[in-house]
Amino acid sequence: MTGKNKGRVGGDQVSELTAGRLSVYLRCLNALDAEGAKTVSSKALAEQFQLNAAQIRKDLAYFGEFGVRGVGYYVKELKRHLRQILGVDRSVRVAIVGAGNLGLALADYPGFRQEGFAIVALFDSEKNKIGHRSKGGVRIFDVADLRKMVKKEHIDIAVLAVPARAAQSVAAQIVAAGVRAILNFSPGALKVPPQVKLKNMDLTVSLESLSFFLARGESDASS
Amino acid sequence: MTGKNKGRVGGDQVSELTAGRLSVYLRCLNALDAEGAKTVSSKALAEQFQLNAAQIRKDLAYFGEFGVRGVGYYVKELKRHLRQILGVDRSVRVAIVGAGNLGLALADYPGFRQEGFAIVALFDSEKNKIGHRSKGGVRIFDVADLRKMVKKEHIDIAVLAVPARAAQSVAAQIVAAGVRAILNFSPGALKVPPQVKLKNMDLTVSLESLSFFLARGESDASS
Repeated sequence: MTGKNKGRVGGDQVSELTAGRLSVYLRCLNALDAEGAKTVSSKALAEQFQLNAAQIRKDLAYFGEFGVRGVGYYVKELKRHLRQILGVDRSVRVAIVGAGNLGLALADYPGFRQEGFAIVALFDSEKNKIGHRSKGGVRIFDVADLRKMVKKEHIDIAVLAVPARAAQSVAAQIVAAGVRAILNFSPGALKVPPQVKLKNMDLTVSLESLSFFLARGESDASS
Repeated sequence: MTGKNKGRVGGDQVSELTAGRLSVYLRCLNALDAEGAKTVSSKALAEQFQLNAAQIRKDLAYFGEFGVRGVGYYVKELKRHLRQILGVDRSVRVAIVGAGNLGLALADYPGFRQEGFAIVALFDSEKNKIGHRSKGGVRIFDVADLRKMVKKEHIDIAVLAVPARAAQSVAAQIVAAGVRAILNFSPGALKVPPQVKLKNMDLTVSLESLSFFLARGESDASS
């Protein structure tokens, strides 16, 4: 890995955008593999999944030379490489903190298990929820036991799905428990120490990206 | 708007990344406004919310000159501009298709209402769900009535939260009903006509971005 592109807009930002794209490529390769495709070119991959062929080649070249001239990529081989790069060649252990509507829905989200993520526990502070399970069978533990459970269950990633007012203090508990990566569904900005990776899934941001498109489309439909 | 940067990696991709960042800036400005801040510099904004000051200036300059030398940005004014650019200066009307765990959780997600999105209806095909409401009071309609309801309720955006196996056919129904923007939470790639904007919220992609960070961090902790 040369790292030559990393400085452009800040290494961390490049990494995150790249990781997002690699993850999308992996989804596409899974679909192709399920259809029985053995090889795929960057051009075919781009056309079938509305991606950018030059970007695909650039992203993959950054991590090594996976393509074969005249053939493209071997689907299964590239899948294996991408799973390795993304760190999902082993089971990644996830806890969901907040057993409200969203937390319970996320605990049972079928895509996670399919891709090798193990949802090992839910946490909440409401006593009447503790000991119960999600419909899919994920057990709800007391958030006071987070630290103990993170060690015992080797939890890699915490998904934060608590009300906005509780988000910062619960994030601090997660960090104190030794978790190094947080996927945050609570609205608003959280502060975590630099060694902890925080990914915000502010759902409003996603809806605004669509409304941005609609607003521009309506005023600029001819472009 | 000059559009001078639009060609670099494909106009649509730039737009979506830019919209995502503008939306994040809006979240930050909301927080600053709530704290009573009148003005903010790109540097302070970047430091407080772990953003990139140069990127902030570039993104905002693209849409006009909002900054004042020596002052920075007026918080309320920039908020108003961003809401306009993002098309959320009016109420944006949203339907959620799929009244399972995730759909019901999304219908009641508090961040949507706070930011001017109106969740006007849920849709499902299961007869025993139709006529019921989410905990927050959003009514579940028959998906067979989607077209009629989209017109009657002026629905701008559909959120797709159905099982993967149903996603493509339900997406086609949404498109046929005249909706021009879809936020898709179902795993897997969907095909929609070019005039329809699709944003995929594959939750697995987000977890993989974190596991990518953990995998790199463990093998490359000194960098």
